[in-house]
Amino acid sequence: MSRRYAIVGCGAVGGYYGACLQRAGAEVHYLLHRDYDHVRAHGLRIDSKFGNFVLPRVHAAQRPDQVPPCDVVLVGLKTTANHVLPEILPRLLAPGGVVLLLQNGLGEEDALARIPGVGTIVSGLCFLCANKVGPGHVLHLDYGAIMLGEYRADGRPAGVTPAMQAIAADFKPTGIPIELLEDLLGARWKKLVWNIPFNGLSVLLNTDTRRLMDDPGLRPVIRGLMEEVVAASAATGHAVPAGFIDKMVAQTEAMAAYLPSMKLDYDAGRLLELSSMYEAPLRQASAAGATMPLTEALWRELGFMENSKGR
Amino acid sequence: MSRRYAIVGCGAVGGYYGACLQRAGAEVHYLLHRDYDHVRAHGLRIDSKFGNFVLPRVHAAQRPDQVPPCDVVLVGLKTTANHVLPEILPRLLAPGGVVLLLQNGLGEEDALARIPGVGTIVSGLCFLCANKVGPGHVLHLDYGAIMLGEYRADGRPAGVTPAMQAIAADFKPTGIPIELLEDLLGARWKKLVWNIPFNGLSVLLNTDTRRLMDDPGLRPVIRGLMEEVVAASAATGHAVPAGFIDKMVAQTEAMAAYLPSMKLDYDAGRLLELSSMYEAPLRQASAAGATMPLTEALWRELGFMENSKGR
Repeated sequence: MSRRYAIVGCGAVGGYYGACLQRAGAEVHYLLHRDYDHVRAHGLRIDSKFGNFVLPRVHAAQRPDQVPPCDVVLVGLKTTANHVLPEILPRLLAPGGVVLLLQNGLGEEDALARIPGVGTIVSGLCFLCANKVGPGHVLHLDYGAIMLGEYRADGRPAGVTPAMQAIAADFKPTGIPIELLEDLLGARWKKLVWNIPFNGLSVLLNTDTRRLMDDPGLRPVIRGLMEEVVAASAATGHAVPAGFIDKMVAQTEAMAAYLPSMKLDYDAGRLLELSSMYEAPLRQASAAGATMPLTEALWRELGFMENSKGR
Repeated sequence: MSRRYAIVGCGAVGGYYGACLQRAGAEVHYLLHRDYDHVRAHGLRIDSKFGNFVLPRVHAAQRPDQVPPCDVVLVGLKTTANHVLPEILPRLLAPGGVVLLLQNGLGEEDALARIPGVGTIVSGLCFLCANKVGPGHVLHLDYGAIMLGEYRADGRPAGVTPAMQAIAADFKPTGIPIELLEDLLGARWKKLVWNIPFNGLSVLLNTDTRRLMDDPGLRPVIRGLMEEVVAASAATGHAVPAGFIDKMVAQTEAMAAYLPSMKLDYDAGRLLELSSMYEAPLRQASAAGATMPLTEALWRELGFMENSKGR
């Protein structure tokens, strides 16, 4: 009756949503790498604002062939690890199975769609403040809503599709708010309005969202970056509603001090998601005739930081 | 016969030029603060690309009233210390004496000119790679030329004046190249073409000029900042010759790894010269209708770094 999920990437995103689905009754299989032994022995632990819980026993797998064919493969990897997906996805997907891509940035679906055996891609934006704090251990700080849209190769709005509705139905018992998007790309651009300033500046200035917001002198930089993203989104055909920047600023002011994912990646020595979060938007903006000089400078400065690390 | 100099600020600039003047026969008095005891006992030591030398005995003073009236008061302080000058300059200057201001940035002369007793201000740009490495001890890495111009309150070119020629004559026996500028402000803007990118980026990215130049991805940021300065200079009435940016880039490529003064200040916990190097140029550009978005973002990011230091 319930559909079968595979979770690829058991960090904050995959761990949290996978555990919530399993707790709500779904059959969930976790494809694990470094954390396999720990998760197989101890399961998953979620420390959440909405209530802590432990799943002592989970379906843990080390290789795709240990997982039965799945209706939905939830990809919660960093985009920097997407090169492993051509090997993995065809082995996990049941015929007619759907890829649920929960990643930041732009442009990753185009590469996924070229993988043989990958058909429908439902792509999600997570409004989740959560960090993986240990193997199989996620600290969920706040929020958690997912916006879902279906990918179309031509970039046009796909509307609300049966695949999206089926996933929304699967999530319903979890209580996690799911919003169905007619225009996936437009939503991805809107998310970049937050991600481009806060991910980059937190790395560049070695700080958190609270301290970024507390310096009034920095506010025009944050807004300047946001305005570039809004203009680029409009130029690519996805107008952002008036007042959206004010809303993002107000939401961030109301948030507790938060380290964006790129800052955590940088501090942990992981690759930065520069390609999906900066390079693809810059490329798409440029193709649409929009310039993003502050965003481009920030991207190049982050590239310098990544390249010069450990030198 | 030889004229009498006072040196205010015995760092890399004041120490190097003062020692060169003294070695060439001028009467030089050093007004010292923290380094007084050391310099009084041991004199000055210059380790220079052009030959090391030591001046075992110098005229060292702790207070202005220990210095006889001087024909030229050379100010080699950081601009961030200029608030001490109203107290000091009137006591050091002989009647008709000249202030020789060797500082970076824009706008400092306007404040000096308001100090009672300050008449003629000759303002210099130093093309000097040197660092103070200890009390009375300067490491001179390369270059050293000074461009001199006379300040006019209305910002217009003063031409080549007698005060400039007299200082050039004083420096002649030192072998230090002196260039006399008809347009002081134009030269200050030209110097900012280098200072604005390299001072700021070396602090922001915690690095030196060599590594900034070695990352091809960063080159458009460096050039973008330089182009903003060139455009602002032109807007304020000081056109920069074509090819000047290429020349600056080529010169920096040819330089050994160098830590710009602002990076040394940051690492040593000193105040940053943000006001003269960024804020005044931004203000003057804005008044002339020129925008400098990359420069402004860099300035604001540096302000954040300075404000959040030690937190």
